[in-house]
Amino acid sequence: MTDLPRHVHIHEEGPREGIQIEPVNLSVADKVRFIEALAETGVRQIDCVSFVNPKRVPTMADADEVARAIRKRPDVRYTGLWLNQKGLDRALTLPLDVVGSIRLTASETFSVRNTNRTIAQTIDEQRSWLATYRRHDVPLEWGYVMTAFGCSFEGEVPVDNVVAMVQQSIDLAAEFDYALKGIYLADTVGFATPADIERRIGILREKWPDMKVGLHLHDTRGTGVANVYAALKMGVDQFDSSVAGLGGCPFAEHKGAAGNVCTEDLVFMCHEMGIDTGIDLEALIECARMAEELFGHALPGKVMHAGSLSRFRKAA
Amino acid sequence: MTDLPRHVHIHEEGPREGIQIEPVNLSVADKVRFIEALAETGVRQIDCVSFVNPKRVPTMADADEVARAIRKRPDVRYTGLWLNQKGLDRALTLPLDVVGSIRLTASETFSVRNTNRTIAQTIDEQRSWLATYRRHDVPLEWGYVMTAFGCSFEGEVPVDNVVAMVQQSIDLAAEFDYALKGIYLADTVGFATPADIERRIGILREKWPDMKVGLHLHDTRGTGVANVYAALKMGVDQFDSSVAGLGGCPFAEHKGAAGNVCTEDLVFMCHEMGIDTGIDLEALIECARMAEELFGHALPGKVMHAGSLSRFRKAA
Repeated sequence: MTDLPRHVHIHEEGPREGIQIEPVNLSVADKVRFIEALAETGVRQIDCVSFVNPKRVPTMADADEVARAIRKRPDVRYTGLWLNQKGLDRALTLPLDVVGSIRLTASETFSVRNTNRTIAQTIDEQRSWLATYRRHDVPLEWGYVMTAFGCSFEGEVPVDNVVAMVQQSIDLAAEFDYALKGIYLADTVGFATPADIERRIGILREKWPDMKVGLHLHDTRGTGVANVYAALKMGVDQFDSSVAGLGGCPFAEHKGAAGNVCTEDLVFMCHEMGIDTGIDLEALIECARMAEELFGHALPGKVMHAGSLSRFRKAA
Repeated sequence: MTDLPRHVHIHEEGPREGIQIEPVNLSVADKVRFIEALAETGVRQIDCVSFVNPKRVPTMADADEVARAIRKRPDVRYTGLWLNQKGLDRALTLPLDVVGSIRLTASETFSVRNTNRTIAQTIDEQRSWLATYRRHDVPLEWGYVMTAFGCSFEGEVPVDNVVAMVQQSIDLAAEFDYALKGIYLADTVGFATPADIERRIGILREKWPDMKVGLHLHDTRGTGVANVYAALKMGVDQFDSSVAGLGGCPFAEHKGAAGNVCTEDLVFMCHEMGIDTGIDLEALIECARMAEELFGHALPGKVMHAGSLSRFRKAA
């Protein structure tokens, strides 16, 4: 199993992904309780809120309040998502970890529907973010290429578009004297199969052999965990995921099972294959069960319902 | 992608797996309608009923009636499951495809709980089945090793137990002048990760390089489709699966998400990776939706909720 990484880094997206798409609006106290419980599991980065228009995502209207109320652990980064300069400016006023990113979308139509901007306009917007990062000494980390495997408006997204967005991200960073930590490919609407993972990451690796690649995957069509596995076999060790499988993009134009890859299912698979995540699986399962209680319905995670294998090992 | 098979053979288990575990008892007419719809999708083998004690599985009490009522297509095999001689004798009286198998369990405790027999007693029972196959000119096809990746009573199942059960199956077949088509490993209670799939199939291949291996997988802990992918990469082209992800063993002592790997999710992944299944995915998705209607609640399949990608391709 030498081709698998020894350690996998997980960015927990559940609070943001879940709260942005679930119809129930939790109280600030419940949101905070959920985030604080996640912080106790050993996960090192939690995406807590998004700074978006409350008319489009009403359940994020109290994002500032939530950001202020969390009791922070020093070893955890508490992040937020912005899609425009206004959101970034808002994030900078709050006691959050503002981690700089570049965010481009490989599909023109999706870009417009999701952020109201063409790809060209988004590139300009990124310059404005990068100037802000520089002004505020914000570290730049990952470039994100959204809809890197397909688009629910355009269908196929040519790999050349993805390559162009990666090059664009690298160039934008360089323009502001930054170097990216790596590139995240996001399967925003759940089109990818393991073969796509291998093919697209393979193409990026040919062009940029030393570039780190991360994956933000949605399990829309059941291939999420298989996609993780294909990536692990290629040495990918950086994933976004969502406790209990919460989530889905509210602008992606599809109903149904659209959640992110489920964190505890991913952690379960990693641990069972000898890959460390730094996360306490049992504590994470409790968080997933808390999410079901908070949102008031069954969520798609599997291990949270079946339990891990630890009880069988103790019995043996 | 030369390491992937070109064609994958699927045995549809949904009617049997679903009806044996769902609390709702469908009418004979609904069961038949469901099976007949599945037969129109291009799937070549459907497990329709199990011949078990109606006191233990009341929803299978009308198995004979169902078996008789199905209008059969000549290109589809309609099978049933028996766990003892009485069940086999019952199957032989019905207009079903009686496909001979050898069924051993790698965990002693599971064997007793599931079939009321020790492994040694099960081996004797298989001799009685094999004699019956010979008497009735029943072809012998696969040997099944249940709990081949773990047991919800015993925990770990040593790979040596699995190897012993494979050897035992081969020997039993030979004793009656049969040759097995291959061996199915069943992850009856959903313990397997892709690493386990590779390791255990790898060990069997070392010992029996030419033996065909099939997989019967449960997606109890979210690794089901990843396990399929790991097996495909090893050239495995024979899978059991269950439309809509129906199913779960009623005697496996666990609650929660215990269904089989979902047929349409598996078919979706195969087709998207260029692997033929002979199945019409859209027709199969309709069957999955029919299953939700019949059983009256959401089922775990993903593609049935999100839809396939065909509509994006047509639009493009």
